[in-house]
Amino acid sequence: MSSPRFPNIRVLSAELEGWGFFLCTQKDVRHGRGGELFISVSLQDRTGLVRARIFNEAARLREEFDSGDFVKVQGRTELFNSRLQLVIENIRRVNPDQDRGQGFREEDCVLSAPRPVEEMWKELDELILHVRDPFVRELLQRITAKHVEKLRIWPAALTVHHAYRSGFLEHILSVARSALTLGAAYGANQDLLTAGALLHDIGKLEELEYDRSTSYTREGNLVGHVTLGVMMARATMAAIPDFPDVLRAQIEHLIVSHHGHKEFGAPVEPMTIEAMILSAADDLDAKINQVKQVLAEDAEGEFTAYHSRLGRVLWRG
Amino acid sequence: MSSPRFPNIRVLSAELEGWGFFLCTQKDVRHGRGGELFISVSLQDRTGLVRARIFNEAARLREEFDSGDFVKVQGRTELFNSRLQLVIENIRRVNPDQDRGQGFREEDCVLSAPRPVEEMWKELDELILHVRDPFVRELLQRITAKHVEKLRIWPAALTVHHAYRSGFLEHILSVARSALTLGAAYGANQDLLTAGALLHDIGKLEELEYDRSTSYTREGNLVGHVTLGVMMARATMAAIPDFPDVLRAQIEHLIVSHHGHKEFGAPVEPMTIEAMILSAADDLDAKINQVKQVLAEDAEGEFTAYHSRLGRVLWRG
Amino acid sequence: MSSPRFPNIRVLSAELEGWGFFLCTQKDVRHGRGGELFISVSLQDRTGLVRARIFNEAARLREEFDSGDFVKVQGRTELFNSRLQLVIENIRRVNPDQDRGQGFREEDCVLSAPRPVEEMWKELDELILHVRDPFVRELLQRITAKHVEKLRIWPAALTVHHAYRSGFLEHILSVARSALTLGAAYGANQDLLTAGALLHDIGKLEELEYDRSTSYTREGNLVGHVTLGVMMARATMAAIPDFPDVLRAQIEHLIVSHHGHKEFGAPVEPMTIEAMILSAADDLDAKINQVKQVLAEDAEGEFTAYHSRLGRVLWRG
Amino acid sequence: MSSPRFPNIRVLSAELEGWGFFLCTQKDVRHGRGGELFISVSLQDRTGLVRARIFNEAARLREEFDSGDFVKVQGRTELFNSRLQLVIENIRRVNPDQDRGQGFREEDCVLSAPRPVEEMWKELDELILHVRDPFVRELLQRITAKHVEKLRIWPAALTVHHAYRSGFLEHILSVARSALTLGAAYGANQDLLTAGALLHDIGKLEELEYDRSTSYTREGNLVGHVTLGVMMARATMAAIPDFPDVLRAQIEHLIVSHHGHKEFGAPVEPMTIEAMILSAADDLDAKINQVKQVLAEDAEGEFTAYHSRLGRVLWRG
Amino acid sequence: MSSPRFPNIRVLSAELEGWGFFLCTQKDVRHGRGGELFISVSLQDRTGLVRARIFNEAARLREEFDSGDFVKVQGRTELFNSRLQLVIENIRRVNPDQDRGQGFREEDCVLSAPRPVEEMWKELDELILHVRDPFVRELLQRITAKHVEKLRIWPAALTVHHAYRSGFLEHILSVARSALTLGAAYGANQDLLTAGALLHDIGKLEELEYDRSTSYTREGNLVGHVTLGVMMARATMAAIPDFPDVLRAQIEHLIVSHHGHKEFGAPVEPMTIEAMILSAADDLDAKINQVKQVLAEDAEGEFTAYHSRLGRVLWRG
Amino acid sequence: MSSPRFPNIRVLSAELEGWGFFLCTQKDVRHGRGGELFISVSLQDRTGLVRARIFNEAARLREEFDSGDFVKVQGRTELFNSRLQLVIENIRRVNPDQDRGQGFREEDCVLSAPRPVEEMWKELDELILHVRDPFVRELLQRITAKHVEKLRIWPAALTVHHAYRSGFLEHILSVARSALTLGAAYGANQDLLTAGALLHDIGKLEELEYDRSTSYTREGNLVGHVTLGVMMARATMAAIPDFPDVLRAQIEHLIVSHHGHKEFGAPVEPMTIEAMILSAADDLDAKINQVKQVLAEDAEGEFTAYHSRLGRVLWRG
Repeated sequence: MSSPRFPNIRVLSAELEGWGFFLCTQKDVRHGRGGELFISVSLQDRTGLVRARIFNEAARLREEFDSGDFVKVQGRTELFNSRLQLVIENIRRVNPDQDRGQGFREEDCVLSAPRPVEEMWKELDELILHVRDPFVRELLQRITAKHVEKLRIWPAALTVHHAYRSGFLEHILSVARSALTLGAAYGANQDLLTAGALLHDIGKLEELEYDRSTSYTREGNLVGHVTLGVMMARATMAAIPDFPDVLRAQIEHLIVSHHGHKEFGAPVEPMTIEAMILSAADDLDAKINQVKQVLAEDAEGEFTAYHSRLGRVLWRG
Repeated sequence: MSSPRFPNIRVLSAELEGWGFFLCTQKDVRHGRGGELFISVSLQDRTGLVRARIFNEAARLREEFDSGDFVKVQGRTELFNSRLQLVIENIRRVNPDQDRGQGFREEDCVLSAPRPVEEMWKELDELILHVRDPFVRELLQRITAKHVEKLRIWPAALTVHHAYRSGFLEHILSVARSALTLGAAYGANQDLLTAGALLHDIGKLEELEYDRSTSYTREGNLVGHVTLGVMMARATMAAIPDFPDVLRAQIEHLIVSHHGHKEFGAPVEPMTIEAMILSAADDLDAKINQVKQVLAEDAEGEFTAYHSRLGRVLWRG
Repeated sequence: MSSPRFPNIRVLSAELEGWGFFLCTQKDVRHGRGGELFISVSLQDRTGLVRARIFNEAARLREEFDSGDFVKVQGRTELFNSRLQLVIENIRRVNPDQDRGQGFREEDCVLSAPRPVEEMWKELDELILHVRDPFVRELLQRITAKHVEKLRIWPAALTVHHAYRSGFLEHILSVARSALTLGAAYGANQDLLTAGALLHDIGKLEELEYDRSTSYTREGNLVGHVTLGVMMARATMAAIPDFPDVLRAQIEHLIVSHHGHKEFGAPVEPMTIEAMILSAADDLDAKINQVKQVLAEDAEGEFTAYHSRLGRVLWRG
Repeated sequence: MSSPRFPNIRVLSAELEGWGFFLCTQKDVRHGRGGELFISVSLQDRTGLVRARIFNEAARLREEFDSGDFVKVQGRTELFNSRLQLVIENIRRVNPDQDRGQGFREEDCVLSAPRPVEEMWKELDELILHVRDPFVRELLQRITAKHVEKLRIWPAALTVHHAYRSGFLEHILSVARSALTLGAAYGANQDLLTAGALLHDIGKLEELEYDRSTSYTREGNLVGHVTLGVMMARATMAAIPDFPDVLRAQIEHLIVSHHGHKEFGAPVEPMTIEAMILSAADDLDAKINQVKQVLAEDAEGEFTAYHSRLGRVLWRG
Repeated sequence: MSSPRFPNIRVLSAELEGWGFFLCTQKDVRHGRGGELFISVSLQDRTGLVRARIFNEAARLREEFDSGDFVKVQGRTELFNSRLQLVIENIRRVNPDQDRGQGFREEDCVLSAPRPVEEMWKELDELILHVRDPFVRELLQRITAKHVEKLRIWPAALTVHHAYRSGFLEHILSVARSALTLGAAYGANQDLLTAGALLHDIGKLEELEYDRSTSYTREGNLVGHVTLGVMMARATMAAIPDFPDVLRAQIEHLIVSHHGHKEFGAPVEPMTIEAMILSAADDLDAKINQVKQVLAEDAEGEFTAYHSRLGRVLWRG
Repeated sequence: MSSPRFPNIRVLSAELEGWGFFLCTQKDVRHGRGGELFISVSLQDRTGLVRARIFNEAARLREEFDSGDFVKVQGRTELFNSRLQLVIENIRRVNPDQDRGQGFREEDCVLSAPRPVEEMWKELDELILHVRDPFVRELLQRITAKHVEKLRIWPAALTVHHAYRSGFLEHILSVARSALTLGAAYGANQDLLTAGALLHDIGKLEELEYDRSTSYTREGNLVGHVTLGVMMARATMAAIPDFPDVLRAQIEHLIVSHHGHKEFGAPVEPMTIEAMILSAADDLDAKINQVKQVLAEDAEGEFTAYHSRLGRVLWRG
C-alpha cells in the first residue's frame, strides 16, 4: 500500500488511487448475471458517504469484513452514472492497536457535525448559565447532567437533517441562537426560549438508538419523541422542589407544540409568542441544514437537481 | 304557581304554561332598541337545553338569579323563528332545603348521559375483572380507584360528543364494547383493547374542568389530553412493580395514536391491529353520538338540516 | 427429480433444493449485458408469491411454458438482495392427467383466502337466513343465487386487500360480522347491515375479471364498482314484487356511500347510523387485511419496513 | 291601489311606492323586543328575490296569505343596511280568475331563466337531430320524450347555479354548445359530447323536487344525481334493441365522471377526451352562471364584495 | 361638555362619562323594530376601535357627521353583550381651526403603529447605510426616496396584521431585524436580506389605497402585491447603470417567493437560504403582530377566546 | 449500409434492420457487471424518442459522437422488457454537407409539433388581424414581432405538455381557438381573450432555454414564467402611447391568474369571465395534449397503463 492516503470523502474526486480508513455501513454480496460474485459496499468518514464495489477477489475479501466494521481500504475512484464510486482492490477490518500508528481514529470514520464537540458543549454551558430563572436553570442543568453522553454524540434525526454524530447538539444550539435573537426583538421570555430550544427534541435521546449508525427504538416508533420529551421534562421538573406549576405548563407547551401544526402531528399548536418563535426557529434550522447538505452533495451547476423532500431545485446563488 | 310542572326539555312543546327547576347556564342583560330592558337566558335539565327570555319585570328579576344557579322558573313556551323558546314570567334561585319538597334534585337539572351512573359503573368493574393479564388489570384498577369521582361525572368533551354529565363514562364503555367485539373477530389482544378503551381519553380528566358546566384547564389547553393521558398512564404503571416494558409501550401507543391520523394531531399513527381497532371504535362512537343528538334536536322532517361539523344532512330513516 | 417437494411458499426458506407445482404469473425473456439469455419468472401457490430466475438452458426452457400456465418446477432457493429467489433448473407445463398422480391440484397453485370456501359459503347462507325482513332476505337470496360462481372465487381487489381467490367472500363475511356486532351495540337495523355488508362491493363482480389472475373490465374502469353495484342491486329489487321504496333507497344509500368521504370518490356520504357503521367496518377490514399481509411478508425484526400505502412502519407486537 | 305597478325585481330601486304580483317564498311571524308583532317575508318574480317586512296591521295581514302563495302586495321600497327592502302596507292571496284581468300570470312570479322556454326547446330538438349515430339519437329522443314536463321547467340546482325555473334546460344547452365547439377543435366524438351534455345532470330530474320552490327528494339525498343519472340512462339504453355495449359504457362514463375529480365525489375520473371536455364545459358554465348572478345582485362599485363560495371578489371589468 | 376627556380607546373602560375626538369609520342609520330611529357608529383613535350607538335625537344628529369625518363626541361607555360600547349623547364634525385649541390632532384619531414614525424612519436610513453592496444600496435609496410619503404612513395590510397607519414601515423594519440576526447565524448574504426585508411587500404601496381607511386598488385586486412588487423593483434596477443581472435575479426571487409555499399563491418557492430566512421572518412577524393585537383586544382571562384566523386560543402566559 | 432507412420513430416496430438520422439526446458510457463496456443512448426524430444501446465495438464507437450531436445510425430494433430498443451496430456524427445528399435535414431530427410552422404562423397573424381594439392589436403585433424567432420554435414546457419544437405556438393557437368559441357563447370580450391566449405563457420565452433540448433559465427558475410574462407585457404596453390603464390591468390580470387556483401558485385567481375562460381553455389544452401523447406512446390494449401525473388510466375508446 504505497499509494497515498485518500482525502476526506467530501472532497474526494474521480480517478484517484489510494487507501484510507472508513466505517463500513453496508455490505451486500451479490451475483452478477454472468454468475460472477461481487460486493456492494457503503463507506463513511466524518465528512460524508461514498459508494464502493468489490469486483476482484470478492470470494476472498467477503470474509475480511462486515457491515458495522471500521475498515482499511485500498483502491481507486471512478465515476459511474455520473456519481463517484470507489473500486476496492483490498479491504480488511481495522486492528485498532496496530492501525492507530497509521493515523486511524474512530471519530474520523463516523459522519459528524462540522464543529468540535468541546466547543459546542462550552456554548451549551454558557447558554444555561445565562438563564436567570433559577428553576429553569436547575432544570436544564439536571437534564444535561443526566444525559451528558448522549447529548455529546447523538444525531438530530435518522435521515432528514443533522443526521450525523453530534448533530443533536449542533441543532439545539443553532435553534437557541435563532430563538434568542428573535425573542429579543419581540420582547419574549428568554429563559423560556432557552429551555424550549434545548428541550424541544429531548425525546429524541430516547426515540433514537445511535452507535455509529442510527435507528428508532421501540419507544421511538410507538410513542414518538414529542411525547417522550414531555415526559422526560416533567419527570425532571417533578424532582425539583417547588417547581412552579405555571412554569412547568409553559415548558411542556413549548415541547408539545414545537412541530407547529396539527397536520404535522403536533398535539397542540403554539399558543404563546415563545412557542411560535421556537417552532419557526426549529423549522428554519432543519430546512437550512438540509439545504447545506444538498448543496454540498450536488456539486455541479448553478441549480441543484430537483430535491423531492423539499419539492424544488435549489440555487447555489 | 298553580300551573302544571313542565315535562323534560327533550319533550317540551310550544304553547305550554307551567313551572320547573333548571340550571341557568347563561344570563345576558340587554337593552332593546327602544331602550327597554330584557334578559336572555339559557336553561338546562338532564335531557336538554332551552332558550328563554325575560321581557316583563326584567329590572326586578335580574336580581333574583345568576348564571350557574339552579332556578325555579314559571312561564310559557312559544316558537320563535321555528325554535322553541321559554318566556319567563317569574324566576328565582332554588332554595335547596325548601324546594326539595317540591321535587327539586340537582342531578335532574344537569344535562346527563341517558344511562344511570350506577349501572355504567358496574359495567366498568366487570370489564376490568375480565382482564386476564394481571398487570393490565392492576393498572386499570389503580387508575379507576384514583379517579372515581371524576370518572363518574365527567363529560367526554366540551361540545362535540357526549358533552354532558357522565358522558366520559358512557363513551369509554361504548368504545370498549365495540373494540372488544371487533377484537374478537380479528384475534386481537382483548386485554390491550380493554386498556385502550378505558384509558385512551383519560387525559380528559385533566384537560377539562367540570362543575355543572365544562371548560378547559390550563394544562388542557397547553398540553392536551393525548399527552396528559400518556403521562397519567405511565405514572401509574411506573408505580406497579415489575410492569413489563413492552406492555407499557403497547399501552402508551394505544393512547398516543388514538386520533388515528397525523392530520388530526396524532403524534404517531396506529402501528398495531389493536391500535387500529381502538381508533376506529373511538371515531365511530363519537360520530354516532353526534348523530343521535342531531336527530333528537332536529325533530322534524325526513332529513335534518345541514349539519356543518358533519358536513351533511342526516336521514331519520 | 428425486429431491423433496418444496413446502408452501409462505414458509419457504433459502438454500433448499426441491420441486413443486405452481402457477406462473409472469415470464420475461431477457438478455444480460454479456448477451446471455435468461428468464425472469413469477410463481404462485395458494399461500404466496415467489420470484424465480432461469439462467441455465434458458433457450430450451423458454419453449416449455408460458405466463398463465400451471408448471412443474425443479430448482433451489437462495437470497438475492435479502429477498428469496428460486433458481430454476427445470420447468415444464403441467399435464393435469399425469401430474394429478403426483399431487397436483389447481386450487393449490392459486393464491387463496386462508379459510375453505365451503365453510365461508355456509356462513353466508346462515347470515341470509337470519335476516328477518322478507324483502331483504329475498334480495340477498336472489343476488347470491345469481352470482354463485363469482361469489365463491372472486378476489376483493386487484392489489390492495384480499387480492386472492375467494377474497371477496372472505371480506364481505368479515365486514358483516363486524357491522352486526357494532350494529347490536348501537341499536341499528341489523337486516340493513347484513344487506350492506353483503352488497357494498357487489359491483366488483363486474368491475373485476378474474381467472387465476385479476384485471379490470371495461365497465370496471369506466363506471366503477360503486355505481355498478347500485345498478345490480336496483335491478334485482325491481324484479321483487312490492319491494318497498324506502327500503330500496336505504340499501342503495348503503352501497353508494360506503367509501365514506367525498375525497375518496363517494358520491354521497353516510347519512344514517347503518351507513356509518358499514363504512367503518369496511375500512377497518381492508386495513387489517393489509396489515396481516405485510406482517406475513416482512418476516424479520420487531418493526416492518416502511409501508408506503399505509404510510408507516408496523409493529409485530 | 292607485299607485303604479312595481317594475321587475331585478330593476327595482329604493323609495318607490307601488303594487305587484309575487310568489311568497317565506313567511315568518315574529315579536319585536317591545312585544309588537311583525312579519318577515320573501317575495319573488321571474327576475329576482326581494326581502319584505310587514309592520302595520301585522295581526290582521298574517291571515291573508301563506308561504307558497301567489300574492298581491302594496307598499314602498327602502334601503335597510344597504340592501333593498319592501315595506308592505297591504297583502292578500292572488285570486287567479279575478287578478288575471290586472295582468297576473303565474310564470311572471317565479324566478326563471332569461331565455324563453320555447326557444330553448327548439334548440334542444335541433341538437338531437344533428346526432349522426342512430343509437345515440334514439336514446336522446326517448329520454327527452319521457321527461318533457320536467325538462322544460326544472332548475339545475337548489342554490348554486341556474337555480330557477328552466335553469336545467338553460344549463345543458349551454354545456352542449361549449362542448361541441371544443370537441370540434380537438377532433372529439360530437355525438358523445351531445349525449354527455344533455344527460350528465339527468339524475337531477329525480334528485330535485320542484314546484315553484326547489328541494331534495329522498333519493336525491340518499343516492345523488350522478348515480341516479347513470341508472336512468342505462334503463333507457337497455330498452333500445341492439344498443352497442361499448357505446353504453362510453355514455355511462360521461355521466359518472362529469364532476371531474375524486375530491368532488366523482366515482371515476375522466378517462377520455370527451369526458375531459364535458367536465370542463360543465364546470365553466356553472361558474360563469354564478358570476353573472353575483354581478347582477351586487350592483355597485368596480369590484363586488367577497363571495365566499367562489372565494374571491369579482371584477365588473 | 364639562365632563372629562376620555382616555385612549385601548384603555377605555365601562361606566365612564366624557368627551373625545375620533375618526368615524362607519355610520349606519337604522330603524328599530318599534320604528324608532337609531344610528350605529364606529369610532377610532390611534390606539384602537370602539363601537358606538346614538339612541337620543338620532334624527337631528344624523345630519351632524358622516363616515370618514373626524368628530367630537360626548357620551358614556357601557358593556353590551360583554363588549364595550359608547352611547353617544352628542356628536359633530370637527372644526379643525377651532378644535385644535382643545387638543385635536388628526394623527391622534387614526389607528397607528405604536412607534413614532421619525424613529422608525431613522432606523430605515441606517439599515440602508449599512448595506455594503453599492448596487443594493442605490436600489434601496432610490425606492425609498421615490415612495417617501407612502412608506411613512401606509399600513401593511387591509385587516390581517399591522393594519394601521405606518404599519408597513413597522413591519418591514421588524422583518429586517429578524432576518439580519438569522442571516448572521447562518452566514447568509446580509445585503440581500436587507433588500428582501425592505422590498418584499413593496407592491403593497400600489396594492392598497390608504387615506385614513384602507382599501384595495384596481391593480391590487387584479395583479396583486407580489407581482406589482417585482415590477417596481425591476423598474428601479433597470434605471441603475450596470446593475448586475445575477443580483437582479436574486432580489426578484426574494420578492416573488416570500409567501413561501405554492399553496399560498407563491409563484415560486424559496430556492436560497436568504429566501428561506426572509419568508420565515415575514411569516413570524405577521403572526406575532396578530397575537399582540388579539391579546390587547381580548383583555380578560388566562386564555383568549378562539381566534378563527389563527385557529386556536392564545395564552396570556 | 445497404439496409433500408428506418421509418419515423412513432411508427417504428421491432425486428427491423436499417439506418437513419437522429438527434442524440443522451449518451452514457457504462461497464457491465462482467466488466464489458456498453453505451446507453437516446435518439430522437420529429415524431418521437427511442432508447438505444451499443454493445459491439463500444470502445471505438464512443469516440464517434456525443450527446447533442446529430448522428447517422445503423442497427436493428428489438423489444426489451416490452419496450422498443434500438441495438446500434454503427454510429457517427452527421456531416451536414455530405449527408444532406442522403436526405438529412435538421428539422426532421428534432421532436416537433405535428402542424407545419408556416401554417401555424399564418393562423397567428390572422388572429391578431381580427382584434378590433387598436391597442390590443398593437400590443400583440409588437410582442410577436419582437419574439419571432422564439415564437416559431419554442416548446410550451420542459416535459409536461407540448414539450417539443414549436409546441409553444401550437399551444397558444389551440387555447385561442377554444377561448374564442367559449367567449362567443358567453358574450365575453374577444379581444381580451385573444390577448390572453397569446400572452398567458409569454414568460416561457424567458423561462426556458431551447436549442434542440430544453432547460430552465436562471430567471425561469428564480422568477417563473407567470411573473416574467406580466413584466414582458407591461414593458411592451408602456411603450405604446396612450395605452389605457384599465386595459393594461385587464391583460395583466389574464396573465397573472391563468393558473386558476392559489394552490397551483397563482398569485391571484380569475376575477372576470374572460380570465375564467382562459384558465379553463389552457388547462384543458394541456391535459388533452398529454392524453394524446400517452395514447400515442402506450400503443396496446383498450386501456393505457396507469399514468402517474394524470393519476388514472386512459381509455382508447
